[in-house]
Amino acid sequence: MAIGLSTMLEKTETLLGSDHASVVSMNLFVALLCACIVLGHLLEETRWMNESITALIIGSCTGIVILLISGGKSSRILVFSEDLFFIYLLPPIIFNAGFQVKKKQFFRNFTTIMFFGAIGTLISFVIISLGAKHFFEKMNIGDLTISDYLAIGAIFSATDSVCTLQVLNQDDTPLLYSLVFGEGVVNDATSVVLFNAIQRFDLTNINSTIALEFAGNFFYLFILSTALGVAAGLLSAFIMKKLYIGRHSTDREVALMMLLAYLSYMLAELFHLSSILTVFFCGIVMSHYTWHNVTDKSKVTTKHTFAALSFLAEIFIFLYVGMDALDIEKWDVVRDSPGQSIGVSSILLGLILLGRAAFVFPLSFLSNLTKSPDEKLDWKKQVTIWWAGLMRGAVSMALAYNQFTTSGHTKVLGNAIMITSTITVVLFSTVVFGLLTKPLVKHLHPSSKRSSTTALLITPGSSLQDPLLNGDSIYDPYYDHIDQPITFRMFLKTPSRAIHHYWRKFDNAVMRRIFGGRGVSPVVPGSPVETSIRQWSEGVEIKEQNGEP
Amino acid sequence: MAIGLSTMLEKTETLLGSDHASVVSMNLFVALLCACIVLGHLLEETRWMNESITALIIGSCTGIVILLISGGKSSRILVFSEDLFFIYLLPPIIFNAGFQVKKKQFFRNFTTIMFFGAIGTLISFVIISLGAKHFFEKMNIGDLTISDYLAIGAIFSATDSVCTLQVLNQDDTPLLYSLVFGEGVVNDATSVVLFNAIQRFDLTNINSTIALEFAGNFFYLFILSTALGVAAGLLSAFIMKKLYIGRHSTDREVALMMLLAYLSYMLAELFHLSSILTVFFCGIVMSHYTWHNVTDKSKVTTKHTFAALSFLAEIFIFLYVGMDALDIEKWDVVRDSPGQSIGVSSILLGLILLGRAAFVFPLSFLSNLTKSPDEKLDWKKQVTIWWAGLMRGAVSMALAYNQFTTSGHTKVLGNAIMITSTITVVLFSTVVFGLLTKPLVKHLHPSSKRSSTTALLITPGSSLQDPLLNGDSIYDPYYDHIDQPITFRMFLKTPSRAIHHYWRKFDNAVMRRIFGGRGVSPVVPGSPVETSIRQWSEGVEIKEQNGEP
Repeated sequence: MAIGLSTMLEKTETLLGSDHASVVSMNLFVALLCACIVLGHLLEETRWMNESITALIIGSCTGIVILLISGGKSSRILVFSEDLFFIYLLPPIIFNAGFQVKKKQFFRNFTTIMFFGAIGTLISFVIISLGAKHFFEKMNIGDLTISDYLAIGAIFSATDSVCTLQVLNQDDTPLLYSLVFGEGVVNDATSVVLFNAIQRFDLTNINSTIALEFAGNFFYLFILSTALGVAAGLLSAFIMKKLYIGRHSTDREVALMMLLAYLSYMLAELFHLSSILTVFFCGIVMSHYTWHNVTDKSKVTTKHTFAALSFLAEIFIFLYVGMDALDIEKWDVVRDSPGQSIGVSSILLGLILLGRAAFVFPLSFLSNLTKSPDEKLDWKKQVTIWWAGLMRGAVSMALAYNQFTTSGHTKVLGNAIMITSTITVVLFSTVVFGLLTKPLVKHLHPSSKRSSTTALLITPGSSLQDPLLNGDSIYDPYYDHIDQPITFRMFLKTPSRAIHHYWRKFDNAVMRRIFGGRGVSPVVPGSPVETSIRQWSEGVEIKEQNGEP
Repeated sequence: MAIGLSTMLEKTETLLGSDHASVVSMNLFVALLCACIVLGHLLEETRWMNESITALIIGSCTGIVILLISGGKSSRILVFSEDLFFIYLLPPIIFNAGFQVKKKQFFRNFTTIMFFGAIGTLISFVIISLGAKHFFEKMNIGDLTISDYLAIGAIFSATDSVCTLQVLNQDDTPLLYSLVFGEGVVNDATSVVLFNAIQRFDLTNINSTIALEFAGNFFYLFILSTALGVAAGLLSAFIMKKLYIGRHSTDREVALMMLLAYLSYMLAELFHLSSILTVFFCGIVMSHYTWHNVTDKSKVTTKHTFAALSFLAEIFIFLYVGMDALDIEKWDVVRDSPGQSIGVSSILLGLILLGRAAFVFPLSFLSNLTKSPDEKLDWKKQVTIWWAGLMRGAVSMALAYNQFTTSGHTKVLGNAIMITSTITVVLFSTVVFGLLTKPLVKHLHPSSKRSSTTALLITPGSSLQDPLLNGDSIYDPYYDHIDQPITFRMFLKTPSRAIHHYWRKFDNAVMRRIFGGRGVSPVVPGSPVETSIRQWSEGVEIKEQNGEP
């Protein structure tokens, strides 16, 4: 990922020319963020809206107002910068996603998620790339190279996990949420890795060596990024447990957790890995080990602080995208060819719908083959998965800016059309598809309405200790009850369960011993390591079967 | 305050030339912050060290290492930028100070604090300015104008409230803490206001009109800044109470509180007010009204999040100052005149000692005249106040950079000497005076040792609910028991108490009715306003006398 403060600063600078102007724009931006939160709160109970759409609409309206005030010259108080996005806004969102994800659901569906996220994105990428090449070559929209077409495939394969978080509810539809969201994170990572690979490799002459190298690079990034995230999470757990930072100060614990999470992200950037994957797994490990080794106050604080920061970053992004959509400079270039611009946007939307359908239904079918009847994805769930992943968001914007502009500016017709089409696709998919998702989910899964009302009734009176004692996401029992012996045949038949079981063995016995976690009963210190590991591992299993946390 | 993202960005940019370099330096910085926290934790029990000094030393060591690696060319990974400091680092620190300050102590000593902070700083400013003019004119260190001398006075009158927070303990020496810290905040604001006034006014020909205008400007800024901070705090309380944001989401409450606090700071910047004062009073009002209208989870979260962010900003500043102290460029210019540089630094340190003594002892004497015998400041306390305010820190650095450099660079001998002397004074006062403060406080106020041990013993086992139910700073009963009638004579005799009482009347009756606060018993809704206000006000007083929260 080409990330640099300097580029970002340069871009910001061109706009924030004078001191006073920058203070004015910061005030405006902070005030708009406040307005989004208050409005989002007031619109919470409506059936259609969500915070992303509110922020997008407020952003666009502000853009229009600024456009009118400036006499049609500028609609921006900040230029959209991929670096601001990738360095400051994305990390808290993805980290928080890992931190709050229901791990039980996530790991139970691990294979399905990886299937959808990696293979599915590749299928979608191929279909969109081929489709774009097929249609755009006939439309005469300027010089687009083969790597441009491949980039288009990667750009529009990236579903918007931020928007997904807002339309699906973890408590109402836990299975769908974990599938769609988990897929979204893996999909983001896949798209970014693909995009980087496209920019790095010379793809004018594809042969088998390059294809192999490409695949090798892909898996290398995948595995190393995950390992780095897990390592950073374990390091933080180790520091918290061994040094007992909370003894002197809760604030120090909170600060250290924030810093280490961010460090994992920046380290991944440093080594040119997929920082999204790294910080996601760092979040998972931190919520599973580190979180259980800090004081109770730190638990409440970190849980809500990470959520609040992520929430702020999300609104910021949508406000930003909304404002940037009105940017007059880009629309100026494509003003003479409105037909082409609309055509390109429509084709892209069609390809997105097709590309997603092309992997969700076949892969669901394959996934169903390995599952017991009550775990199968029926057609309602498949349609929801297909639909909930159609939104395109800030990741697509950032990648499009990277490919088709130079420091946020472009005068070439083909590039300008791609930028305006990306904006159109993002706005349309977020607003239209996004607006329809909540009603669709409620229609297909009517049970969700009841539980959402219950949640509403419980929240105001909930005591401070609720999240620590009751079924809050972080306290989820990690695993369910599998006690039958695992054979290789079973591994082939139900891979997720088997992997699960092995990991659990390893995890319970070794990792928790070192890093703590969930406050399970301690091992008798003097006993031989092997015995104690086995005994403890069994002890935990029995406990879990009895329904203890 | 001349604040602009653009200037900051420009400065940062020159150094963070390439993308990869910026990622490397960010990694290094985040890793160093982690190291500071861990080391600070390990050194917590030592008698001498504190986090500021640890960060300064780590920063300097890193600077040396970078200097060696780069072959003596550069010691910086980030250039010290006053804008980064004033826009991002100072707001959380000062806001948190207001948010966590023991309001009872603060308002009981309100007049003394304002005396020390405003009049004291003016006395110190005059002495340092005159002294600098007297000595430096004889030393032939380049062209310094009258406004340079006045700026020197303002720069070195700014005590470092950040460092003060670390050497004095709120629980061990509450009176001294509130005096020194309260004075520090007012003093920061006074220095910045003075500094701005110096830069804005033409002070080559001082006459009575200009002096009057200057004084008028000063009070105008003071009152308006405070009013803005209070208004922002009350607005946040109103929003929280009326909209009941926490019904849907704790995270939204936390995010909104952060945004509104920051908005108050930026609004003060927008209107060219003293943003330090504004955000400080915003913090006080938020902790007194807003904080009591949010959910329990939000209470714990905001308390620790603000503290953690402030803590991070503090370490960041000291690490930054430590690294910047090694900057080879500035030392290059003054290399040929080491004697002058040492002379200037020594004179400045002497003037700081003298300037502070010149107001602490006389003003303490005046303040004692109005106080009852057991509240008087004895000589031990006076010495502690004098000593604890000798540290100079990041505010001085930032102001010096503003006055004596152009975008962080200077080649003029006089200016370079002033910059290196500022660095020397900051390092010397923080390390030497800072190291001696803890032992001095323990020597002069031996009782503090016991209670610090107690605090240590209690902390690890403290439950989640402690801060909400027991004597935590935010839950401090705001006022103590004054029930004698207040006369005008008493107002003159014990002004702080009288003001106190009137404010309390107003405050209890009207403000809490509108904005909530401390969960006092509600007013009977149907009764006439006047009666209910009186009844309620009395009810609260009786409660407080009974020792209820």
